[in-house]
Amino acid sequence: MAAAAAIGGRARGLSAPNPNVGALIVSDGRIVGRGWCQPGGRPHAEAMALAEAGAKSRGATCYTTLEPCAHASPRGPACSALLIAAGVARVVGGMIDPDPRTAGAGYARLRAAGIAVTDGVLADVCAATMEGFLTRQRLGRPHVTLKLALSLDGCIALADGSSRWITGAAARAHAHVERARAEMIVVGRGTLTADAPRLDVRLDGLEGRSPRRAVLSRDPPPDGWEGLPAPAAIAALDGVDHLLVEGGAGAAAAFLAEDLVDRLLLYRAPIVIGDGRPAVDAIGLTDLSDAHGRWRLRDARALGSDRIEVYERQRS
Amino acid sequence: MAAAAAIGGRARGLSAPNPNVGALIVSDGRIVGRGWCQPGGRPHAEAMALAEAGAKSRGATCYTTLEPCAHASPRGPACSALLIAAGVARVVGGMIDPDPRTAGAGYARLRAAGIAVTDGVLADVCAATMEGFLTRQRLGRPHVTLKLALSLDGCIALADGSSRWITGAAARAHAHVERARAEMIVVGRGTLTADAPRLDVRLDGLEGRSPRRAVLSRDPPPDGWEGLPAPAAIAALDGVDHLLVEGGAGAAAAFLAEDLVDRLLLYRAPIVIGDGRPAVDAIGLTDLSDAHGRWRLRDARALGSDRIEVYERQRS
Repeated sequence: MAAAAAIGGRARGLSAPNPNVGALIVSDGRIVGRGWCQPGGRPHAEAMALAEAGAKSRGATCYTTLEPCAHASPRGPACSALLIAAGVARVVGGMIDPDPRTAGAGYARLRAAGIAVTDGVLADVCAATMEGFLTRQRLGRPHVTLKLALSLDGCIALADGSSRWITGAAARAHAHVERARAEMIVVGRGTLTADAPRLDVRLDGLEGRSPRRAVLSRDPPPDGWEGLPAPAAIAALDGVDHLLVEGGAGAAAAFLAEDLVDRLLLYRAPIVIGDGRPAVDAIGLTDLSDAHGRWRLRDARALGSDRIEVYERQRS
Repeated sequence: MAAAAAIGGRARGLSAPNPNVGALIVSDGRIVGRGWCQPGGRPHAEAMALAEAGAKSRGATCYTTLEPCAHASPRGPACSALLIAAGVARVVGGMIDPDPRTAGAGYARLRAAGIAVTDGVLADVCAATMEGFLTRQRLGRPHVTLKLALSLDGCIALADGSSRWITGAAARAHAHVERARAEMIVVGRGTLTADAPRLDVRLDGLEGRSPRRAVLSRDPPPDGWEGLPAPAAIAALDGVDHLLVEGGAGAAAAFLAEDLVDRLLLYRAPIVIGDGRPAVDAIGLTDLSDAHGRWRLRDARALGSDRIEVYERQRS
């Protein structure tokens, strides 16, 4: 299942509006088919994996990070129907599809056809790979990551605005991978005016994965940019399941103040700046106790001499 | 040797002006004597360990974090003479004593008496336990730790100054242990005026380990406080090998600007404050490239839901 989740990660930033499911067909202990949701959402992961496995699907086990869909659509048949037709003996799933058109009906259909079904295997891992899709299902908006590149004392730039460079090459390359995993990047108007950032993915082989660019402003956006009048406008974005907020302190605060950040991505350099530009403007906090219990460390690692930390918003 | 270093840690904050050496006497694979430099510096660790071992010292091995001293003083005999008189067969040392009165002469004396000597065992570990003494020997001043309790966005308080609490109980208890490991704590005048901090050690069994308190100010200090007119004045402090700078942003900046901080002790809570009080005032940094290469992560751990990070100043 971990391998299926990893393979599903390939589709992140590409499969919207469909979830970036990963699937494997295993026969006699060997992987005979691999699939991930294709750009634009079709074919689905299971369909791709079954196509690769061909006749070896018969009697095999399908591992899939999300319950196979129960609903046929004009764009293709239901994966549950494909799995039944292919004669798989067992389906192991990560989690139930929250889409009301499936929501357990996929598993029921498989079971009715005599297929053994196990659900909830590595559910956390599977959910993490599909956080964009799941956030849209649960909260009706894209999953939002706020990226900050900080000194140890929490500055994103010197007082004069210079920020090249706080973090090193490894951290900056990592940040470009994060860009490729989002469908859209947002910056504030101040950042756009001051830095005119390209916000593209400058990594070999991923040049084609640069996301759409948006500026948080009521003014008409410049060419090549989209405009977001307010953070809440992200709910209306088509084809965006993962949003990356890249700067600056005003945009960060705007999203945080409306509780629209699901993930903090902190790149921290081993430097002290002192009296520099703070990372986050006012978010309306008046009592420290209100700040607690919201964020949980999910990952912390070294990137060259820098550290990356990932915090996730805890929602009950 | 790691055990000897740990035992030497007991004397930290107590043994000035002498180093907080730890020593063990091992005979037939058993520890028969343990010693650490006693409050005020005497007896030395080796003398205490030999006294505990008694006749079992004959033919035994002495592990000591620092070369045994070669110089007798009015306060007691030289440890090298004591080890020879006790008939130990072997001495394993962590590092040469930089005190010019010993500086290799202790080992020479042992060797001349037919004792096998090995030096440099776990030298880094031993040096870390005696950083106060070593900093005074090398830089002519106490070892300085700057403590900061921060939000993820680098704030030490809300904009209105409230900072209770940013970190949780485990982090605050840890900070009290750090107080007990220093001979003096320094705060800025602003912190003294605003918070009137007690700066004592409020941990069961360590109440007697509260360090001296100083305020960074040219004004006469209040009762119970000492005054430091400037960071550089720490060089003249008697009986202080470990100095803890506890707050606020002005004091932090004053010590950092003069490159008088050896260790950053960061307690980081999983909260975002936004537009709060920054951790460090201006330190005179005008070019980001000057900020790099100075700090190296030495330790990072969880303390409840907070994280502690220890960075060390890299000096060539």
